[in-house]
Amino acid sequence: MNFKEKIISRIKEKGSAVCVGLDVEPGKLPEILKNEKDPVLKFNKEIIEATKEFTAAYKPNLAFYEQFGTKGFGYFEKTLEYIGGEALKIADAKRGDIGNTSKKYAQAFFETFDCDAITLSPYMGEDSVTPFLDREDKGVFILALTSNKGSYDFQMQKMADGRFLYEFVIEKINSWNIKKNCGMVVGATHPQMFEGIRKLAPDLPYLIPGIGAQGGDLENTVKYGFVKNDVLALVNSSRGIIFASNGPDFAERAAEEAKKLRDQINNFI
Amino acid sequence: MNFKEKIISRIKEKGSAVCVGLDVEPGKLPEILKNEKDPVLKFNKEIIEATKEFTAAYKPNLAFYEQFGTKGFGYFEKTLEYIGGEALKIADAKRGDIGNTSKKYAQAFFETFDCDAITLSPYMGEDSVTPFLDREDKGVFILALTSNKGSYDFQMQKMADGRFLYEFVIEKINSWNIKKNCGMVVGATHPQMFEGIRKLAPDLPYLIPGIGAQGGDLENTVKYGFVKNDVLALVNSSRGIIFASNGPDFAERAAEEAKKLRDQINNFI
Repeated sequence: MNFKEKIISRIKEKGSAVCVGLDVEPGKLPEILKNEKDPVLKFNKEIIEATKEFTAAYKPNLAFYEQFGTKGFGYFEKTLEYIGGEALKIADAKRGDIGNTSKKYAQAFFETFDCDAITLSPYMGEDSVTPFLDREDKGVFILALTSNKGSYDFQMQKMADGRFLYEFVIEKINSWNIKKNCGMVVGATHPQMFEGIRKLAPDLPYLIPGIGAQGGDLENTVKYGFVKNDVLALVNSSRGIIFASNGPDFAERAAEEAKKLRDQINNFI
Repeated sequence: MNFKEKIISRIKEKGSAVCVGLDVEPGKLPEILKNEKDPVLKFNKEIIEATKEFTAAYKPNLAFYEQFGTKGFGYFEKTLEYIGGEALKIADAKRGDIGNTSKKYAQAFFETFDCDAITLSPYMGEDSVTPFLDREDKGVFILALTSNKGSYDFQMQKMADGRFLYEFVIEKINSWNIKKNCGMVVGATHPQMFEGIRKLAPDLPYLIPGIGAQGGDLENTVKYGFVKNDVLALVNSSRGIIFASNGPDFAERAAEEAKKLRDQINNFI
């Protein structure tokens, strides 16, 4: 099964296009976990158990693990174990380097850590991406149009042919998608661009951040970002779900928020 | 001391603009280390000890550590310890994410791992870079024009105003350089661009990969990339130095290659 089919079938099976961002911050952990041996791990474990019913994918962002140094990579590894086969495992790592180096990153995330997908930055071009495309069952989400303010600095600058840089990037992603294992990142904070983007990339799965804390527009994201027959997009929420409460009910509240997002998306479809 | 001053003084003090890339590959380690408890660590330790006299900076690329999983971050941490205060420690990580996430990466590399500098990818724009610029003594090298073939895919595409994308990126880097802690990555495989690039960024330190295995042009790199009064560039070589020999003389041969590169650069200055 190629990565595109894997996403579609996982979303169907779960009845959910929700991706939960596991961006753990030590300062925001519930009081009740403070005396645990490893509050971070206990937190992730409880969040995953509570939300897995409503969730097609989990997306730990590596920054939140690297902040702890070597120990943090242990947290990352263990967190992937907790997810197990329950949902897709997306390493939000935004890597990308020259060919022989990207090959090592691919080995790290697809073999050593056994993630299903990774996010990549496109700036270094084709040979920084292709080492991640060997296996049809492992996918990449390449940054196209991100959810942050900085997306205006380069991505939304016009090229000589009149297109935006991100449109140029999307064209390249299409050309790299031979094994149906490419996807792209498009932020929900740009809903006015979604209709045009879907026309440029009818075949690519989206990973959509920017819902929740970043203030993205869910209705238009779903209306224009999703494709009609197969749901070909994962909508990520991190802080809005995992830090819904920092009381003893943190896991239940996270589950409620994940369920709510799932239902909102399904209503808009 | 700001990062720019730190680079200049370190290069002066060492009489060398050499940066050694510590991109360790298990398959290329010398036979003689095979029975060591940790061949990777032993290798890095010996390479650092042998080359430190000729070296202004070391640049471990994170991919080569992440390939080992959690254990690899232990290698990275230990390798930084071996370098100690002998040379600048540059984390070649090519990170970059939305503001609150970049902040965590900055914490990871500047506080937890205590590196002097990190490489960043610019694609996500200003708020993905500024969290790394808080401390004037810690620097960033932002990808401008990289050494690989993929640099033609986006970096060397023309923008609406007639400039290349990388020129546009350089203009932004200049505007972020308020605390004199920004630098940029320019590949030695584009020596014909160096004269123009130095005019665009007279004040920015360069990190220059592409010498050695990638076939860059050292003479023109130094002629056009370096500035006259202060040496404001680090020339990186990875494989060409650390894997000069895989025999029992691997450390001596690495030292010879580092010394040779130092002398070649100094002759061209």
